[in-house]
Amino acid sequence: MKLLTYKQDGFEKIGAMDASGTKVLPLEQFGITSKTMNELVCSSEDLKKLQAADFSNAENQILYAEAEKCAPIPCPMQDIICLGINYNAHAEEAARFKKDAFGREKPFAIYFGKRVNEAVGTGEGIPAHRDITKQLDYEAELAVILSKDAKNVKLEDAYDYVFGFTVLNDISAREIQTQHKQWYFGKSLDGFTPMGPWIVTKDEIVLPPRLNITSKVNGELRQNSNTELLIFSIEHVISELSQGITLKAGTIISMGTPAGVGMGMDPPTFLNPGDVVECQIEGIGTLVNEIIE
Amino acid sequence: MKLLTYKQDGFEKIGAMDASGTKVLPLEQFGITSKTMNELVCSSEDLKKLQAADFSNAENQILYAEAEKCAPIPCPMQDIICLGINYNAHAEEAARFKKDAFGREKPFAIYFGKRVNEAVGTGEGIPAHRDITKQLDYEAELAVILSKDAKNVKLEDAYDYVFGFTVLNDISAREIQTQHKQWYFGKSLDGFTPMGPWIVTKDEIVLPPRLNITSKVNGELRQNSNTELLIFSIEHVISELSQGITLKAGTIISMGTPAGVGMGMDPPTFLNPGDVVECQIEGIGTLVNEIIE
Repeated sequence: MKLLTYKQDGFEKIGAMDASGTKVLPLEQFGITSKTMNELVCSSEDLKKLQAADFSNAENQILYAEAEKCAPIPCPMQDIICLGINYNAHAEEAARFKKDAFGREKPFAIYFGKRVNEAVGTGEGIPAHRDITKQLDYEAELAVILSKDAKNVKLEDAYDYVFGFTVLNDISAREIQTQHKQWYFGKSLDGFTPMGPWIVTKDEIVLPPRLNITSKVNGELRQNSNTELLIFSIEHVISELSQGITLKAGTIISMGTPAGVGMGMDPPTFLNPGDVVECQIEGIGTLVNEIIE
Repeated sequence: MKLLTYKQDGFEKIGAMDASGTKVLPLEQFGITSKTMNELVCSSEDLKKLQAADFSNAENQILYAEAEKCAPIPCPMQDIICLGINYNAHAEEAARFKKDAFGREKPFAIYFGKRVNEAVGTGEGIPAHRDITKQLDYEAELAVILSKDAKNVKLEDAYDYVFGFTVLNDISAREIQTQHKQWYFGKSLDGFTPMGPWIVTKDEIVLPPRLNITSKVNGELRQNSNTELLIFSIEHVISELSQGITLKAGTIISMGTPAGVGMGMDPPTFLNPGDVVECQIEGIGTLVNEIIE
């Protein structure tokens, strides 16, 4: 099932895509009381109703093409947990860009927080923040959304806690990211978290996900990899973090990006206003955003 | 004014300390509709009522000594923004502990996120997480709470956005912090954010704060400095971050810790179950927590 957030008459609503992939079905008609995706993700009762819902007779359908799209979770309940350097080829390009940042040894996952006041939906703009960065970069990533509080989770149970997946573009201001040593600030500027176009629930994906992941800038292929090449798996990450942190329902974990980002090009090539970035993951969808002044 | 959160009959309530510093005055009697400190901090209407309230005739007073104390903001609305290495002497001890972590040059503030599901109040225990860390450490810090959304704030206007101050102990699992390169995981374990004993509103502190800050472990003085020795000031931090990030009302910023943490001792000396840590800031108060299994 593909679940999304959209706006109607100025109000945020949640819906599901119909089987044809062209229409949005408002969820309220199925007896679902959750008003936001955060509520829905955390409500086992509403999730049951959703699974039992008969979409074939849905009313008040909206053409997806005409819907005012939001990020599937416009206001994450907590900062997003991101992984750094979690595909081998990206580890190499990052080391080239900043030789002393990463050693050859990679025995531990790199986790950092990414603050998000409001996530950016597909079709919305990414602010360039030209006054503070000249090194705006993209990172296509698979993001995982949890639906249950996860604590001391065993590797083999990790997927029990997963609600679904979406595409996340971990926009980064590279000089801010590196100057300030810890990456938090350079990853957390307003508008730096495009996410979407929707959440695909876990049941639609063969686990662990082996999905092509790509990004394009102005139509030019930049990243092209597969989520089977993750260094640290989704199970590893949920299990490891949950040994110390209770990962609350609604937690979003972004699994890191493959090679091909702008800082890895020769010479490094960054985003400018007017550029259009498309991040795509097979079986999930395509997230398209233009850089705006 | 000193504002705190406590529990009564299992429910979280907010109160103010009376002039004698021995009694808690429940805020609901002053016509304040906010139920939590997060709501109060963000409600300019309730803040006006609070300033106009006559505490001398307050009813339903509770003895502070008998109150079930919580952290003043038990559930921060977003991850806490922390500063690393923001006192010069601490920069030196951190460099000794891990030579390659910090260069001599320090032109940029170090910011990182600290996830907090539930902050720990004074008198509550700090879980040792013995299964995953043997290097549990304390960091006494001045924390700043914002009461208005801050965006593009000028240096000279920064204090307009400050609601008040509290004491925060930025508990850290050192080997997790360093092994995983980015500090997020080692700073974010459950129970790693003791905070309190209350919030002191801005009007009670001469700005910028020049306050003694100390920590003791089992009565032994470990940290002893003054907040006037911050490398990056509160104004700098609010102004710099707000150029790129809208700092929402309720944001908590922890300003970094002075020299004297366990990893800086020779040999490094970490916390164990049964140890009692007291963090004190002049004019604010003392936060006392025992390490528990």
